[in-house]
Amino acid sequence: MRRLDELAEFSSEENALTRLYLSPEYKAAALQVMAWMSEAGMKTMIDAVGNVIGRYDSQVSDKPALLLGSHIDTVHNAGKYDGNLGVLVAIAAVAELNRAGERLSFPIEVIAFGNEEGVRFPVALTGSRTVAGTLDPAELDAEDEQGISVRVALQHFGCNPFDIPSIPRRRDDVLAYVEVHIEQGPVLESKDLPVGVVTAINGASRFEIDVGGDAGHAGTVPMGLRKDALVAASEMILAIERRAAATPNLVATVGRIEIQPGAVNVIPERACFTLDIRAPADADRVTAIHDLERELRAIAIRRGVALKMKQTYEAAAATCEPWLIEQLATSITRAGIKVLRLPSGAGHDGLAITALCPIGMLFVRCRGGISHNPAESITVEDADVALCVTLDFLRHLEPAAGN
Amino acid sequence: MRRLDELAEFSSEENALTRLYLSPEYKAAALQVMAWMSEAGMKTMIDAVGNVIGRYDSQVSDKPALLLGSHIDTVHNAGKYDGNLGVLVAIAAVAELNRAGERLSFPIEVIAFGNEEGVRFPVALTGSRTVAGTLDPAELDAEDEQGISVRVALQHFGCNPFDIPSIPRRRDDVLAYVEVHIEQGPVLESKDLPVGVVTAINGASRFEIDVGGDAGHAGTVPMGLRKDALVAASEMILAIERRAAATPNLVATVGRIEIQPGAVNVIPERACFTLDIRAPADADRVTAIHDLERELRAIAIRRGVALKMKQTYEAAAATCEPWLIEQLATSITRAGIKVLRLPSGAGHDGLAITALCPIGMLFVRCRGGISHNPAESITVEDADVALCVTLDFLRHLEPAAGN
Repeated sequence: MRRLDELAEFSSEENALTRLYLSPEYKAAALQVMAWMSEAGMKTMIDAVGNVIGRYDSQVSDKPALLLGSHIDTVHNAGKYDGNLGVLVAIAAVAELNRAGERLSFPIEVIAFGNEEGVRFPVALTGSRTVAGTLDPAELDAEDEQGISVRVALQHFGCNPFDIPSIPRRRDDVLAYVEVHIEQGPVLESKDLPVGVVTAINGASRFEIDVGGDAGHAGTVPMGLRKDALVAASEMILAIERRAAATPNLVATVGRIEIQPGAVNVIPERACFTLDIRAPADADRVTAIHDLERELRAIAIRRGVALKMKQTYEAAAATCEPWLIEQLATSITRAGIKVLRLPSGAGHDGLAITALCPIGMLFVRCRGGISHNPAESITVEDADVALCVTLDFLRHLEPAAGN
Repeated sequence: MRRLDELAEFSSEENALTRLYLSPEYKAAALQVMAWMSEAGMKTMIDAVGNVIGRYDSQVSDKPALLLGSHIDTVHNAGKYDGNLGVLVAIAAVAELNRAGERLSFPIEVIAFGNEEGVRFPVALTGSRTVAGTLDPAELDAEDEQGISVRVALQHFGCNPFDIPSIPRRRDDVLAYVEVHIEQGPVLESKDLPVGVVTAINGASRFEIDVGGDAGHAGTVPMGLRKDALVAASEMILAIERRAAATPNLVATVGRIEIQPGAVNVIPERACFTLDIRAPADADRVTAIHDLERELRAIAIRRGVALKMKQTYEAAAATCEPWLIEQLATSITRAGIKVLRLPSGAGHDGLAITALCPIGMLFVRCRGGISHNPAESITVEDADVALCVTLDFLRHLEPAAGN
C-alpha cells in the first residue's frame, strides 16, 4: 500500500494522478517498478513498446513462464489502484518467494504493461497486444493531440520501435497469464467479500438507436394523436432494463440520449440514444440483442414512430481458463474466504493475452465500485488478502494436462 | 386567401415569412391592412402600441362595440395563417356587411394586434394586453437583440408611447371579443371538420425535474445494483403520458431532457427534464400535478434516486363565455356542420382580452396541425366556412342579459 502511494506520486499533475503512456512520469514510474523488481530478485528490462518486465527464474531452466501483470499507465485524474495494484501484488509475491529462497517449477515474469487505457493515443492495450502478437504495426502511427505518433513517442522514450517484432511470445514459452485487478464495480462490496475469481471478460455490443416521431405544439396536440419520440424512447429504455435484468450477469446501459428539437413546449420529434450490452457469455448477449431488436421494433410499430438501430461496436467475450479459475478458487478457499465467481464488465490486459495463452484473473474489492476517479479506494486488508491468495496460488500451481 | 398570400409578402426574408413587431415590413403590412379596412367601410387608425384598428359603426351610436381580431406579427419563418387569418376573416365579414349596406345594432371594431408572438422582444401579447389594460409600463423597456427597447422601437415606428395610457378600453364600451384562428393542432383534421368552437384557452404549468442517481461503469455494475437516473426518468415520462391520457383535454409534454455525464459506457448519474402540463380546466391540471408529484416521488423512492421538481411557470385557464360559445355553435350548425367544442392548447390575444370582456373563439382546421412553420396550410373551402360562420354569428348576435 505504501508502494502504491509512492507510485501514485509519478504524475503529470500536482494534486491528481495522471500518468499517460510514454510520458516523462511514465518513464520515472517504469524505472521505480524496475528497481522494486530487482529488489525482489528479478532480472529486469524495458521492451521496445515500453512494457517493464521482471523475470524470476525457476528451479529448472527452459520451462514455460507464468506471466503475472497489469498496467502502469493511467487515465486523467485517475485512482491509484487501477492496473498498479496488479503489478505491485505480483512484485510483492515474487519478493516473498525470493525472501524465503523459494524457486518454483516454472519461471515467473511480471509485466507492467503500457497503454492499457488508450488515453493519450486513440489505441489501447498496446503493450499487452504486442506481447500477444496481435498489434497491427499501423497502430504505431496513431497520434496524440500534439500530433506525436506512438512510434515517435517510443523513440523519445528511449525504445527502438524496430525491435517490436521480436516482442511477441511463442505459445510454447508461456504457461498462462494471471492478473490481479480492482473490480471497478460494486459486486464484491455488496457481497462483503475481499476478492473474487473472474470467469470471463464480458463481450460487448454497442448500438446507436434513432427514434423518429412527429413534432407538435405541446398545448394543441391531444395525447391520443401524438407520436412523441421521447416517450417511445422511454418505453424502449425500460424494455432494455427489463430484458437485461432477466439474464444473470448481462448488463445493458443507455448512457446517452439527445432529443430534437428539445424545447419545453414542443413534442419531441426525434430521440437518439446509445445502447451498450455486455455479458460474459456471447450467446446470452446475442440472444438479448435479438430479443431487444424485436421488442423495440414492436414498441415503434405500436406507437407509429420510425426506428433505426445501427451497431457501432462488437467484441466477443474472453473466457478465463477453467483450471486457472479452479486453482484461484482453491487458493481463495484456503484463505478462509467464500469463493465468488463473477464476470469482468471492463476490459483488461488479460483480454489481449487470451490471444496468446490461458488467462486467469483475481478481482479485489474497491469502495463503492468507483474507478477512473481519485475516489478509487481499497483497504490494506483486502490488498493483503490478494497477495496471500496470489502467493498460495503460485506455490500450489499445477498446470492442467497439455500445458 | 389571395389577401393572405399578399399579406405574406410583407416579410423581412426573401423566400420565407418573418414579420416581427414594429419592423419596417410590419409597418407596410399594417398600412395594407388599414387600406383593406377602409375599403370595407371602416374608419381606421393605428394606436400608440402599433395595433391597427378599424371601426364599422352601428345603426345606433354609443353602443358597446364587438371586438374582432387577431395579430399580424409573426414568428421567424412563419406560416401565413397564424393571426393573419383572424384579421382578414374579420375584415372580409365587415366588407360583406358593408357591400350589402347592413349596419348592425352594435359597432364592430376589427383589431390587428401587434406582438402576440413575443419573438423580437422578450414580452408577448403586448397589443392585446394594452387594450385590456393589463400591460405593465415597465415592459416597454424590454429590449430586442440590438438593445432597442419597445419604447424606442415604437417611436421609430411613428407611435407616441406617451399615448399608451389612453388605449385600454372601459368594460362598458365593449360587448365582447371574438377571434378566428387556425387550430395549430390536429383535432379538427382528425374529426374531419372545417371549424370548431373553443371552450377555453388552456391553463399551463411548467416544471424542471431533476433526477439524481449514481454514475457507474456500464460493464461492471449489475442491473440490480444500479441507480440509473435515465431509466428512472424514463419511467417518470411514461407515468406522465399515462396520467395525461387519463383526463380528457389534458396534455403533458416532456420536451427537453439532458443527462450527465452522457457517455456511451457510463450509467447516467443525472437526468434533467422539463414538464409542460395544460388543461382547459384548472382543477384538472392541479389534480394531475398533485397525482404526478406523488407518482414521480414513488418512482424515485422505489429506484433509490433523488428527485427535485421546480415549478417555472403557471398560468390559469381562460374560459370562453358560454353565450358566445352557444351562439358560435348555433352559427356552425346553421352552416350544416357538426359542432365540435375543443380547448385551445396555445395562448392567443383572446387570453389577454379575458381581463377586459367575455371572449369567444372559432378554430379553423389546418393541415396536419402544423403551425409556426412554412408548411402551415388551410384550404380555401375552410376559410370560406370560417367567413360564413362569422358573418352568420354577427348577423344573429344577441348579447346575453347583463351585457
